Amino acid sequence: MRFLTAGESHGPALTAIIEGFPAGITISSKEINRELARRQKVAGRGERSRIIEADKIEILSGVRGGLTLGSPIALKITNRDWVNWQDYLALEGPLRSGRQVIAPRPGHADLAGGQKYGFQALRNVLERASARTTATRVAVGTLARQFLTQLGVAVAGYVASIGTVHVPTEGANKLTLQELRKAVSASPVLTPCTEAEKAMLAAIEAAREKGDSLGGTFVIHAAGLPPGLGSYVEWDRRLDGRLGQALLSIPSVKGVVVGDGFAGTTQLGSSTHDAIFYSAERGFYRSSNHAGGLEGGITNGETLVLTAAVKPIPTLLKNPLPSVNIKTKEAVPAAVERSDTCAVPAACVVGEAAVAWELAQAVLEKLGGDTLEEIKTAWNRYSDQLRTWPE
Amino acid sequence: MRFLTAGESHGPALTAIIEGFPAGITISSKEINRELARRQKVAGRGERSRIIEADKIEILSGVRGGLTLGSPIALKITNRDWVNWQDYLALEGPLRSGRQVIAPRPGHADLAGGQKYGFQALRNVLERASARTTATRVAVGTLARQFLTQLGVAVAGYVASIGTVHVPTEGANKLTLQELRKAVSASPVLTPCTEAEKAMLAAIEAAREKGDSLGGTFVIHAAGLPPGLGSYVEWDRRLDGRLGQALLSIPSVKGVVVGDGFAGTTQLGSSTHDAIFYSAERGFYRSSNHAGGLEGGITNGETLVLTAAVKPIPTLLKNPLPSVNIKTKEAVPAAVERSDTCAVPAACVVGEAAVAWELAQAVLEKLGGDTLEEIKTAWNRYSDQLRTWPE
Amino acid sequence: MRFLTAGESHGPALTAIIEGFPAGITISSKEINRELARRQKVAGRGERSRIIEADKIEILSGVRGGLTLGSPIALKITNRDWVNWQDYLALEGPLRSGRQVIAPRPGHADLAGGQKYGFQALRNVLERASARTTATRVAVGTLARQFLTQLGVAVAGYVASIGTVHVPTEGANKLTLQELRKAVSASPVLTPCTEAEKAMLAAIEAAREKGDSLGGTFVIHAAGLPPGLGSYVEWDRRLDGRLGQALLSIPSVKGVVVGDGFAGTTQLGSSTHDAIFYSAERGFYRSSNHAGGLEGGITNGETLVLTAAVKPIPTLLKNPLPSVNIKTKEAVPAAVERSDTCAVPAACVVGEAAVAWELAQAVLEKLGGDTLEEIKTAWNRYSDQLRTWPE
Amino acid sequence: MRFLTAGESHGPALTAIIEGFPAGITISSKEINRELARRQKVAGRGERSRIIEADKIEILSGVRGGLTLGSPIALKITNRDWVNWQDYLALEGPLRSGRQVIAPRPGHADLAGGQKYGFQALRNVLERASARTTATRVAVGTLARQFLTQLGVAVAGYVASIGTVHVPTEGANKLTLQELRKAVSASPVLTPCTEAEKAMLAAIEAAREKGDSLGGTFVIHAAGLPPGLGSYVEWDRRLDGRLGQALLSIPSVKGVVVGDGFAGTTQLGSSTHDAIFYSAERGFYRSSNHAGGLEGGITNGETLVLTAAVKPIPTLLKNPLPSVNIKTKEAVPAAVERSDTCAVPAACVVGEAAVAWELAQAVLEKLGGDTLEEIKTAWNRYSDQLRTWPE
Repeated sequence: MRFLTAGESHGPALTAIIEGFPAGITISSKEINRELARRQKVAGRGERSRIIEADKIEILSGVRGGLTLGSPIALKITNRDWVNWQDYLALEGPLRSGRQVIAPRPGHADLAGGQKYGFQALRNVLERASARTTATRVAVGTLARQFLTQLGVAVAGYVASIGTVHVPTEGANKLTLQELRKAVSASPVLTPCTEAEKAMLAAIEAAREKGDSLGGTFVIHAAGLPPGLGSYVEWDRRLDGRLGQALLSIPSVKGVVVGDGFAGTTQLGSSTHDAIFYSAERGFYRSSNHAGGLEGGITNGETLVLTAAVKPIPTLLKNPLPSVNIKTKEAVPAAVERSDTCAVPAACVVGEAAVAWELAQAVLEKLGGDTLEEIKTAWNRYSDQLRTWPE
Repeated sequence: MRFLTAGESHGPALTAIIEGFPAGITISSKEINRELARRQKVAGRGERSRIIEADKIEILSGVRGGLTLGSPIALKITNRDWVNWQDYLALEGPLRSGRQVIAPRPGHADLAGGQKYGFQALRNVLERASARTTATRVAVGTLARQFLTQLGVAVAGYVASIGTVHVPTEGANKLTLQELRKAVSASPVLTPCTEAEKAMLAAIEAAREKGDSLGGTFVIHAAGLPPGLGSYVEWDRRLDGRLGQALLSIPSVKGVVVGDGFAGTTQLGSSTHDAIFYSAERGFYRSSNHAGGLEGGITNGETLVLTAAVKPIPTLLKNPLPSVNIKTKEAVPAAVERSDTCAVPAACVVGEAAVAWELAQAVLEKLGGDTLEEIKTAWNRYSDQLRTWPE
Repeated sequence: MRFLTAGESHGPALTAIIEGFPAGITISSKEINRELARRQKVAGRGERSRIIEADKIEILSGVRGGLTLGSPIALKITNRDWVNWQDYLALEGPLRSGRQVIAPRPGHADLAGGQKYGFQALRNVLERASARTTATRVAVGTLARQFLTQLGVAVAGYVASIGTVHVPTEGANKLTLQELRKAVSASPVLTPCTEAEKAMLAAIEAAREKGDSLGGTFVIHAAGLPPGLGSYVEWDRRLDGRLGQALLSIPSVKGVVVGDGFAGTTQLGSSTHDAIFYSAERGFYRSSNHAGGLEGGITNGETLVLTAAVKPIPTLLKNPLPSVNIKTKEAVPAAVERSDTCAVPAACVVGEAAVAWELAQAVLEKLGGDTLEEIKTAWNRYSDQLRTWPE
Repeated sequence: MRFLTAGESHGPALTAIIEGFPAGITISSKEINRELARRQKVAGRGERSRIIEADKIEILSGVRGGLTLGSPIALKITNRDWVNWQDYLALEGPLRSGRQVIAPRPGHADLAGGQKYGFQALRNVLERASARTTATRVAVGTLARQFLTQLGVAVAGYVASIGTVHVPTEGANKLTLQELRKAVSASPVLTPCTEAEKAMLAAIEAAREKGDSLGGTFVIHAAGLPPGLGSYVEWDRRLDGRLGQALLSIPSVKGVVVGDGFAGTTQLGSSTHDAIFYSAERGFYRSSNHAGGLEGGITNGETLVLTAAVKPIPTLLKNPLPSVNIKTKEAVPAAVERSDTCAVPAACVVGEAAVAWELAQAVLEKLGGDTLEEIKTAWNRYSDQLRTWPE
């Protein structure tokens, strides 16, 4: 499987093409729209995301009667904002002047992107570097998730901290994925803990009033995965590396850990590993999950647990950070694009999608097959093998 | 550029082939050997690494008179241990029985790897999943580093913590890369702080006596990079994601952060970004480096700062973790392979190499060219462009 | 550079996304439309292509004010036919029954495609396997051609034979690319020879009347290429292999030759190679071009000459080939989809586009760079190097 | 699956690494050596190949007790010639002067390769561009063939023409693959027709005496393939394109056709396609094979038939082609490296290997799986599906 995405933040549309997606998978654009809405409606987002975007997916190919065809799937999200920008961002023909960005925003690609491509117009950078484009990753990842669901694999994320407010992780880690997903679905900050939720909302509101911004962390769980996804045989086939790339490539994510991560580095080896047990009902199993479901670069059958660090949004609406007018070289405040106060819940939705995509890839690499039926047969056969292994 | 590696831990040899490496680059096998020795001789390693391995690189192609040819470069590290293993690991012909692994080691690929490939012989897994194979990544990455050096790019790492002993990072971050490299080169734990070094060595010694193991963190810096490496235009071209994969795919690494990482998530946006300044001498610059040299997925011209979490080694020599005999299903202690007490310094050497490779890739993607001369010309031209930009 | 295409023959739209296309290249959708029209309006096409398709490109991203941005470029061609098919091919929701294909057409993917994906509905195969989808390759390749044009590289194709009517190739090979392109542009069968043209049109008309179909050959020339594109260092970097894949992957193409190809195999070595000469004005040059511009897998600076064999269209409108009802297993005539009589001129247009894409790739691999300006600088520098080489 | 090769013609060794090869496949270095010997001992080769090379494979990893491990497989062929060249081609340290190539050979990469990499020393080019390096492709392809054999897929090639001597193809095409392979194995020119063989040997001898060279054609058959390998869904997944690249990237190959190829272009559609039939015993089948086993870019279950054109070897031992001294620019005869008279039989052996690799890839893409057992299960399941399809 492979995919490409395209689209500028205020351009006519965001698009994606997915190639190699198996045939026979039931696809629902409603579910994609639900995920797009989650990304937009969580707390911390600015006005733009809630009012103007209202993203709806349009599937242009690769599906017939709700079933995938094995052919490339094209997705399109029309930008409702385009009408207000079409003169400034005309693809061909003359450009209306205005809406220029002269003072690059720290924390964004503005400055280095302009230098890289030799652009005088920094808008050329920020239109594509915008987190707006993660809408396509959510759409693509939700397709992958629908595939995983049909195999019994669940992916769910939650916000573990916003600023200095932390959810007690022991509690969250005890929930099943269904419980987690349910608890989170009711929360505007995607957190399963109602007390933390209150404090998070208050922190966001306080930051918004000051025109400041907040970061935080989110956690992605995946359950129902067999052992043996990914491979230890070559570095670029290790699933931890791939999942790390998937999450670190989300705008604003500055760190990723698997399982105990940094906390595990201060423990002794005797207390940070997951002893192996066996019982007739469960087969091989663990009673702890420090490893976060990955050992030696491959899944070990336990729940996958990944945590990502999201930096505070760099666009400050009231007191923009110091910057420079790139033409006059004068010190000026950074440009201000409409922006959010806290991107952590939205990033969590993107993170779920990004992880779902990588897991679907890993499943396909392990099991192969052109159709859901073939994949299911291979899945069942592999499950049988696992039950009797090593005989 | 692309490369593949091969080789079992106790097999006849480790090998690698690098394709797409530019022509005209001065290569020294001595420097590769020096890095291989660093990986082996740092504190925390077991006897095996220090006495038996003694790795020496053999270059088999792609180089003539010390200059690369643009042709694929083949590298070989002969395993001195092979003579003791050749009957048990014979590639063809009958296998001598013995040296079986019946009780998979928690924290390793043993169990899930055996399940994945349907192996009864877990040795088939651990021979390849062994961190021994990182020797080839060091060799390959050192070639990349020699390329970078010829462009004025420096990469240096240091150990920031072992167990609960931490180096004060402010001090380390103030060093230039040359100072850092020099300070670290004298240290058996690759740390620039002599006080921390003493405590780290004591901690390692204490763990070794108990048969326990320690984890820690290492930090990789890279300096001399122009802004604009990597790209924001598509998720898989973001350099933060690629560097994250490079580090997370090193055995035992369970977390990666760029710049402030998780620490930055508890700050307000107004205090966690790097304001932009300009002066005639320095051009655009920052006075802080919270971003760790990457904004929007691309380098911003500041020093790259990446930190990785290394878990304690899971093989415990005296009191192995609980495991299961995969045939009888009895609870037994995990198998014991000769092992180290602390892999953090060795992992740091691998991390430098892994980062060097990704950066060399990123430079080539930005500048193109078949030969060092072409790349240097493009580098200089780009430097000129940066000086006058955005004119 | 990479691209993906999507779209069913009668679906809502054909789409493509191109990633890695350099910034600063002047793009004209008019020129893309002109190529799309050429593909549709040449002789031999059926009614559908001429009346219903009338393809127009819509650029959805990656371009601003007529200049590429370095961001992914999304292209969309709306299918005017969709309105007549939307009930039968509904992406979600119930499918109207009818327009089934029960008897797979020999020479198409119908049968093996249905077997591969386990489809009962062969329409699922033929909608994507249709040559209709080559419209996207023409669009993508025309972008590449616009890039090449700005570097002085020209690509032009002509039809060398239809059925048993052959153009005298010596004449065509003596034309410059501009002359060739001009001569061909006036011809409904894309041939530079007016006598052959008359005979070809007559042959097509005769076949059409019988409900039969014709094949033929086309030739692609490219001029202005420097020596050294592609590489001999690894098999998959050889440009002849890549160009071969590009052409053989066009539907109906069953053979590709470089330069003299099969004709050269009956000659002695002494008379089938291109001796090397040198003059102060021309530098190194050849007085013959048996090699078709490629030696050792790389361009040698002479005109690239590739010839492709196009099989007769397998859909026969009056007397369809024998086939089988896949449900009843009765012998029946093959299904009939609206079809052309001769695909050679249309395939030639696709061939030009496919070759242009590969050459643009090869140029970028040789010269690198994110922007047209960077590429031009590298091009000029390389030209200088060629002039003084081997000093 | 992916692989890289390395090695200079007279360097210390040729090497290859194959990654992604399934586990549990029985591998025999004897069989690889037999193929390496076939490549060397066929008629038309010069003295060097027969006496000096005597290639033997050394497997360095990825195999244990004759079974693959799923780990990367490293292969090494030591060059016996190296001892005579080590001073001239020293990888590090000073180079002994001599054995320079000053007059590039037409038909080789010498000239354009030197220009590309800015080499003064053309030997840097020809050492890697040499057809000597196809030994690694034979080794790699033979591994793939051993995999295919265990699935019942056979690949066999034969020489169809040398110079103007042609084998009657109807006869050859009627043989089963076993018969073909057997007939060919007895022939020094790899041809199943003893009369043609005699004429071919005479032609080679005549050319050798004149110091001239001969080209020709070879044909590759593959049988036992299920329908549905490759895919029509995207251009670069079409198997015809991939096989075309595989063959056109063999040095000296200047053309490739599938099935009837160019001959089919002069026929009417009504007589160049393979009508579809059905019988209870055979399922869907054809009574002709104009398509060469590929329709719509995918296998159709019939025998795969590919033909390649091999140009005459450009190195002429007695009367070298006109060339230029690259330093003085004087007209001089081209350099002479030890060379063969006719490369067609040797190229046929390489062609078999190249095709075997692509087919193994295509099988893995269709069926997936980490181990031979998993692949066989999927193969059997797919065979069942084909029998009952489209139910």
